[in-house]
Amino acid sequence: MPWETAFTQCLGVSLPVALAPMAGVAGGELAAAVSEAGGFGIVAGGYAKEEQFLPEIEKVKRKTDRPWGIGFLTWALEQNPKALDAALEHRPAAVFLSCGDPSPWADPVHAAGARLICQVTSVREAARARDAGADVLVAQGQEAGGHGDSVRGTFSLVPAVVDIAPSIPVLAAGAVADGRGLVAALALGAAGVLVGTRFYAAAEAIGHPAAKARLVTSGGDDTVRTRVFDIVRDTGWPERYPGRALRNRLYDEWNGREDELRTKLDEVRPAYQAAVAAGDFDVAVVWAGEGIDLIHGVEPAGEIVRRMVADAEKCLDRIHALRPSP
Amino acid sequence: MPWETAFTQCLGVSLPVALAPMAGVAGGELAAAVSEAGGFGIVAGGYAKEEQFLPEIEKVKRKTDRPWGIGFLTWALEQNPKALDAALEHRPAAVFLSCGDPSPWADPVHAAGARLICQVTSVREAARARDAGADVLVAQGQEAGGHGDSVRGTFSLVPAVVDIAPSIPVLAAGAVADGRGLVAALALGAAGVLVGTRFYAAAEAIGHPAAKARLVTSGGDDTVRTRVFDIVRDTGWPERYPGRALRNRLYDEWNGREDELRTKLDEVRPAYQAAVAAGDFDVAVVWAGEGIDLIHGVEPAGEIVRRMVADAEKCLDRIHALRPSP
Ligand SMILES: Cc1cc2nc3c(=O)[nH]c(=O)nc-3n(C[C@H](O)[C@H](O)[C@H](O)COP(=O)(O)O)c2cc1C
Ligand SMILES: Cc1cc2nc3c(=O)[nH]c(=O)nc-3n(C[C@H](O)[C@H](O)[C@H](O)COP(=O)(O)O)c2cc1C
Repeated sequence: MPWETAFTQCLGVSLPVALAPMAGVAGGELAAAVSEAGGFGIVAGGYAKEEQFLPEIEKVKRKTDRPWGIGFLTWALEQNPKALDAALEHRPAAVFLSCGDPSPWADPVHAAGARLICQVTSVREAARARDAGADVLVAQGQEAGGHGDSVRGTFSLVPAVVDIAPSIPVLAAGAVADGRGLVAALALGAAGVLVGTRFYAAAEAIGHPAAKARLVTSGGDDTVRTRVFDIVRDTGWPERYPGRALRNRLYDEWNGREDELRTKLDEVRPAYQAAVAAGDFDVAVVWAGEGIDLIHGVEPAGEIVRRMVADAEKCLDRIHALRPSP
Repeated sequence: MPWETAFTQCLGVSLPVALAPMAGVAGGELAAAVSEAGGFGIVAGGYAKEEQFLPEIEKVKRKTDRPWGIGFLTWALEQNPKALDAALEHRPAAVFLSCGDPSPWADPVHAAGARLICQVTSVREAARARDAGADVLVAQGQEAGGHGDSVRGTFSLVPAVVDIAPSIPVLAAGAVADGRGLVAALALGAAGVLVGTRFYAAAEAIGHPAAKARLVTSGGDDTVRTRVFDIVRDTGWPERYPGRALRNRLYDEWNGREDELRTKLDEVRPAYQAAVAAGDFDVAVVWAGEGIDLIHGVEPAGEIVRRMVADAEKCLDRIHALRPSP
């Protein structure tokens, strides 16, 4: 049961559902599972470290012959530009960039025959990516799990981006977690969805079972946007990008006291690393979006894709039944 | 061409579109125009001052025989509870409450034969309103124009509220401004939409032409959530409710310096009042939501309703064409 949109046509896939390139979560196994189900799996290239993402690219190639992509944080790619060449050698169908200016990367991506997908968080940023030659735009609302400088909500951002780039397929990102969200995104003018958090709670996702369990039991009211975890983790994230995560004890302790936290890293960092090792998510971070109210279990990614699409069809029938009969 | 949803059935209207009770904007004329077009017009009772809202109730009654409602800020009603009785004497079809605990007001509203509509901004608040006896829940995302303590986005909040109150009609509020938004809201499980900012740019809305013109020319990237204007206006809004407005010179001057602003009110307040009188919106506030990218003109409210519904039907046809053909 394929759906045909400008996005599925652009990437040669049969369903308008893409996996977000979640650093530390979206490895080759998860990306392959999404691609095998008919969606578009994107391997996280995250911090642009070859030793981290090349093994995952090997995995996705081993597990699927269908199109897949690779995603980088633009600010990290700037620090290690040769990571792009290393990725392009494996002939991804698309390169996904977020958090930074995509302009310098469009030519090498296109020269390698790949599509350029740009995640944006405002109409202004969408216009820049459009002008830089993006083949697909991802409109990321502030509901999204993980990092972003969005202040715009998914609901307002998607149609606004569609209107300034009518000939470019747009994906909706941020709180898309079920068939209702897929139909809502298409209604707003999107050509598909980019799904992160829902796929974090997939069997194939890299991640501690205790973290995935929290995605199932927590609600969207329990997520926060914060820099607390990045200050402790020291991953190089620029100040302007907070991340959305589950609120936990570490957050409650340091939220609003970030300056003091910076002076206490000698103590807090080793305790944090121990918590990560122990799977203690009262301290360690679980990045998660507001859409987690809709997550009720950890399932295989293919199952998540299939139910999302099947429920979208039912959702459409439900709306149709409200319509005037002639 | 009526649409039938749990909301239209509950209120006895033919279209699932409600006017938000915008203080200083949604008077009797605007509410009547929305009700006459088949939607549900709600007169702003705002700060619960009889001398302000009773004349508007007289207007709506004169201009339409269709159902209409009245909206109050709960914290203001607490300061003048008899405003509710004064409103109920006019037999509104519904009383709309936001920003506070609705529990004490459910009995008098129901005793007068009116429905209780509660605007909420989190799943937790939705559960409280459900348990208090709300007949309709409005899920207000942080994109919304005007005040609210929402941190949740419309896209994530609507389905989460629907899921915890499956037997109560839910309206989506926050950045609904065209037919795409109406279909998206229905897709997310809502039984209709509550529209504010789009109707502020209606011919019948109370409001300075220069303010309405700014809604047309500004974009969603230009709205901010702030307390600056309320500190200057001194309308009694509790600290916890910022308001979403167009960014302007006054905002740029005082944002981040709110404490200093409080010490300078002797100067700033008279200048502000002069700006209001002069229609100078570089200083005076224009409350507006993120959905303004979709507003391209000031039109009669009936026209806005009709186009929203007609475009929703086209939007639905567009999505249908993407679906698998058997
Ligand atoms: C655990 C996690 C890690 C993420 N890591 C990245 C990343 O490395 N690069 C990136 O561009 N986006 C990242 N994101 C954001 C996604 O690209 C996407 O915008 C987001 O997941 C969409 O919202 P949702 O989580 O509500 O589906 C991450 C999101 C999550 C939940
Ligand atoms: C100019 C303006 C005034 C508002 N005044 C009120 C009010 O007095 N009471 C209230 O409950 N909500 C008020 N709101 C918020 C609306 O109830 C509603 O949540 C919001 O308008 C929906 O988002 P939208 O503006 O994007 O359509 C106001 C909104 C605007 C734009």
